[in-house]
Amino acid sequence: MLEKLKKEVFEANIALVKNNLVLLTWGNVSGIDREKGLIVIKPSGVSYESMNEEDMVVVDLEGNIVEGKLRPSSDTITHIELYKKYHNLGGIVHTHSTFATSWAQAKRDIPSYGTTHADTFYGPVPCTRKLTNEEIKTEYERNTGFVIVETLESRNIDILSVPGIIVGSHGPFSWGETPDEAVSNAVVLEEISKMALLTENLNSDINHIDHELQDKHYFRKHGKNAYYGQS
Amino acid sequence: MLEKLKKEVFEANIALVKNNLVLLTWGNVSGIDREKGLIVIKPSGVSYESMNEEDMVVVDLEGNIVEGKLRPSSDTITHIELYKKYHNLGGIVHTHSTFATSWAQAKRDIPSYGTTHADTFYGPVPCTRKLTNEEIKTEYERNTGFVIVETLESRNIDILSVPGIIVGSHGPFSWGETPDEAVSNAVVLEEISKMALLTENLNSDINHIDHELQDKHYFRKHGKNAYYGQS
Amino acid sequence: MLEKLKKEVFEANIALVKNNLVLLTWGNVSGIDREKGLIVIKPSGVSYESMNEEDMVVVDLEGNIVEGKLRPSSDTITHIELYKKYHNLGGIVHTHSTFATSWAQAKRDIPSYGTTHADTFYGPVPCTRKLTNEEIKTEYERNTGFVIVETLESRNIDILSVPGIIVGSHGPFSWGETPDEAVSNAVVLEEISKMALLTENLNSDINHIDHELQDKHYFRKHGKNAYYGQS
Amino acid sequence: MLEKLKKEVFEANIALVKNNLVLLTWGNVSGIDREKGLIVIKPSGVSYESMNEEDMVVVDLEGNIVEGKLRPSSDTITHIELYKKYHNLGGIVHTHSTFATSWAQAKRDIPSYGTTHADTFYGPVPCTRKLTNEEIKTEYERNTGFVIVETLESRNIDILSVPGIIVGSHGPFSWGETPDEAVSNAVVLEEISKMALLTENLNSDINHIDHELQDKHYFRKHGKNAYYGQS
Repeated sequence: MLEKLKKEVFEANIALVKNNLVLLTWGNVSGIDREKGLIVIKPSGVSYESMNEEDMVVVDLEGNIVEGKLRPSSDTITHIELYKKYHNLGGIVHTHSTFATSWAQAKRDIPSYGTTHADTFYGPVPCTRKLTNEEIKTEYERNTGFVIVETLESRNIDILSVPGIIVGSHGPFSWGETPDEAVSNAVVLEEISKMALLTENLNSDINHIDHELQDKHYFRKHGKNAYYGQS
Repeated sequence: MLEKLKKEVFEANIALVKNNLVLLTWGNVSGIDREKGLIVIKPSGVSYESMNEEDMVVVDLEGNIVEGKLRPSSDTITHIELYKKYHNLGGIVHTHSTFATSWAQAKRDIPSYGTTHADTFYGPVPCTRKLTNEEIKTEYERNTGFVIVETLESRNIDILSVPGIIVGSHGPFSWGETPDEAVSNAVVLEEISKMALLTENLNSDINHIDHELQDKHYFRKHGKNAYYGQS
Repeated sequence: MLEKLKKEVFEANIALVKNNLVLLTWGNVSGIDREKGLIVIKPSGVSYESMNEEDMVVVDLEGNIVEGKLRPSSDTITHIELYKKYHNLGGIVHTHSTFATSWAQAKRDIPSYGTTHADTFYGPVPCTRKLTNEEIKTEYERNTGFVIVETLESRNIDILSVPGIIVGSHGPFSWGETPDEAVSNAVVLEEISKMALLTENLNSDINHIDHELQDKHYFRKHGKNAYYGQS
Repeated sequence: MLEKLKKEVFEANIALVKNNLVLLTWGNVSGIDREKGLIVIKPSGVSYESMNEEDMVVVDLEGNIVEGKLRPSSDTITHIELYKKYHNLGGIVHTHSTFATSWAQAKRDIPSYGTTHADTFYGPVPCTRKLTNEEIKTEYERNTGFVIVETLESRNIDILSVPGIIVGSHGPFSWGETPDEAVSNAVVLEEISKMALLTENLNSDINHIDHELQDKHYFRKHGKNAYYGQS
């Protein structure tokens, strides 16, 4: 079942390796079939070299395995909570990519210092608060989803305008309308994380990109007046 | 039409990928046929893997598509303004390469700290002022070209002696007498951006390279007394 | 003899190159056959390109060559002391990987700043004290093993919960139940070394990861209640 | 003529690319036939992709071309001065590798902070003084050789114990008994340059490696009591 989505999710997982976003068995990509209410996700702890399309695991929105011989990613419930909350998401990525994870460990939002950031993220990439001990001990992965939602809600963030977040002390999640788009956003998130660190290194007094320039770049690529790319 | 130039421009675009100057669909290279007054440029938002020579877009100096099924780069008008102003330019490159973009985001000129810089850039790589809100809202890409010209003019810079610039909060543009040379200059610009950051990290009191040494290296490679390379 | 172990050790050595943990002839991996009391290790100073399975050297626990035409790694005695002390070790890796070695040179423990660290290392990665002049002059490699043991013992560290260490002014050693696992731990050690440096760069006041979060991540992957990976 | 040496020098030049020490046409390796008093060196400004063995240029110790259709490296005279002064040199490398060049631009000796450094370089890697304006204007490349010699002499450095140097505001030269060994030393020089920068980043109060440990590591690999590698 869901052969097309499995292929997409498989290829999106492999793209994490190609884009140097993961080491060993780290990271995972999922995709959702909204009609069927089923999610396809990477199996847990499986190496990218040995993995193939048929290894992708199909789960329902309660996290039950519907098809597949392997256990799904240990982060599956986090993905599910995001899919349940945001109906326009089609794909989700989690990595421990080096620079985005370092910002998460530093517990800082990633400021928007230029048009590379603004082309894809409309405003800073938020860093979530830390989870309470209670949240960690009970249903940790679900609470990770909840704290992502809480952060986005409390800042009135439109999920597709800021297609990623960093979970404090942990690392980045990104998303998009398709698994492939979620991976592209993970690539951008890592790159802007690196650039922002270097920018501060070069100028400790630097400020956020001007609002006008941010708007110009973001809306050049997104929304009804976008003119970047092919129509 | 312009099959030879299309091939050159296509290969120069692919060279951006090989030299790790671009991610995803970022970046663009153009070339100009001065006799015909026509520019060949990368199509907008097309991936480097799927792209081929025939996808290159031919535009005139007003930005009208003369040949090609795809939309040209959204930065086309910036390229055009530079070609119109500087008649000795044959190729232009725009990237968001990591280190050069970080200097652009830090809004600082890139100082010349050594002979690697002086071999190709005669003096600091200038960083443009930011665009006004008015310039951003109206004809942003054309005004980006104008602010590049304004910066070069106000500093009396000879375009071929300083074959690149960084646009504040945005990223680098570089150029040359051919598309291939413009790419080489983009490679150098990224490398000297990295070295300059590291140099400051190692010695916060460092000064600009001595004038004599700069002259020696620059004119060893450029001008009538050059003796680097094959004649 | 020990053809299977030789193959494992050979492939683990090659994995150091694939994971960018070694340059030139640097680094070495060993594995042990506990029943026979024999160790298989990389030959000293041999390049990875020219090396093959038959070049692996078999030594006993006194360091005598049992099979092989080449001299074993000059670090063999350090490996032996660790195997003798810790009976649950099956593989050991030594590299001069860039970031882990830089922490060793800085003579600092690598703090645990996030879940990437806690997933594999339960607590900071210790840095050993420096060896005394006497320890350096007499049986240097054996004393390197002893100072590793001393550091682990004095901190009551369970060898498999903290599967690596950095030797002050020198570089990292890592280990595992198999040579392959020891290499994976070397990969993680290098990555968390890089992330920890970047984290401090981004936030000089950052603290160690919270204890609850560390426990959650470590025991999600290790011990009887682990649920990461396939059973 | 000198077909074997040409092959060695050609392969050593290609090794610069494989080891990420050069961009574009930068860098050069030479080798010498001491009996014939002839040097083989990379041609000037030729790309590594298009270059082959027959392109290597043979020059005598006055810098005259003895064989070859191309002009030799513009740094040939610097190589020659080193060969003339130090009769135990068989190969010389010049690169603008990123980290070593950054130390050269920072005008600082590269301190020995650990055994990775001490395994190959017995003491800090010296940075030369800057050339006077007179030295730059007249026979610049020969004077670059002279200032390297002056630096080594004034510090009583044995050329093979410290197989490389950085020329202030310029970049690294390294050497060895063969072209291949000179390249290995260039690889080490770049890596220890990176590690030293990172080490200072992690601990601004760090001191030079202890003398005993330096001696142990250096003489483990070099001299009559060496026991690293195969005999």
